[in-house]
Amino acid sequence: MQTQDPLTATFAALADPTRRAMLARLTQGPATVNELAEPFALTLPTVSRHLKVLEQAGLISKQRSAQSRPCTLEIAPLVEADAWMAQYREFFTTRFDRLDTQLKAMMAARADAAKPSRGDQ
Amino acid sequence: MQTQDPLTATFAALADPTRRAMLARLTQGPATVNELAEPFALTLPTVSRHLKVLEQAGLISKQRSAQSRPCTLEIAPLVEADAWMAQYREFFTTRFDRLDTQLKAMMAARADAAKPSRGDQ
Repeated sequence: MQTQDPLTATFAALADPTRRAMLARLTQGPATVNELAEPFALTLPTVSRHLKVLEQAGLISKQRSAQSRPCTLEIAPLVEADAWMAQYREFFTTRFDRLDTQLKAMMAARADAAKPSRGDQ
Repeated sequence: MQTQDPLTATFAALADPTRRAMLARLTQGPATVNELAEPFALTLPTVSRHLKVLEQAGLISKQRSAQSRPCTLEIAPLVEADAWMAQYREFFTTRFDRLDTQLKAMMAARADAAKPSRGDQ
C-alpha cells in the first residue's frame, strides 16, 4: 500500500462511501474534522483514519496555520482520475452511438415492414 | 467487503494498475484469460484473482458458451463511476474558470501598472 501509484491511491481512497461523502461535503468549502464527522455515526478516530487515507491520496490537505486545522478538497487527483475515465467515456460514447444507429435502422426496417404493400390494397 | 455498494466495488476494482491495464486491453475486444495474462509477469492464479475482482464489480463478464470463456468489458459500472466523477468535473471546471478570470484580472492590472503614466512623459 505504501508504493501505490497516484491513480491507485486515488481509486482506493474513493472506494468508500464515507470518504466520498466527505469529499462531497468539501466541495462546499473547507471543514474541520468535527464538521466532517457530524453527519456520520462514527467515532472521531474512525473519521481521522478516513481523513488520513484521503490526505495520503492527496485528495485533501489540512491547513497547518489555523488551530482547528480545517480540511480542504484538493482537486489534482480527481482531475487525474477523470482523465483516466475519459478514455472509457469515448469508448462508451462510441458504443452508444453504434447502438443508436442500429436501433434506428431496426425501427426504420420495422416501419417499412408495417407499411401496407401495394398488393394488399 | 461483501456488502459493498456498486460504486465502492468499482473504485476498489480500479485501484490496481494490473486490473486497469486489463480493462484497457478489453476496450479492443474480448480476450481469453491467457491473452489477458500475456503482457504481465504474473502467474495464472494471480491473473484469475484480478479477473474475479473485476467480474464481481461487474466490470467484465465471461462468456459461458465458448470453451475459452473470453472476457468482455462491461461498461455499466464505468458509466456510473463517470457520473459520480461528473459532479467534481463541474466543480473543478468552475474553479479553473474562476482562476482564469483572476489571472486575467491580475495580468490586466499588471499591464496597466507597467504603462508609463502621463506624469512620466
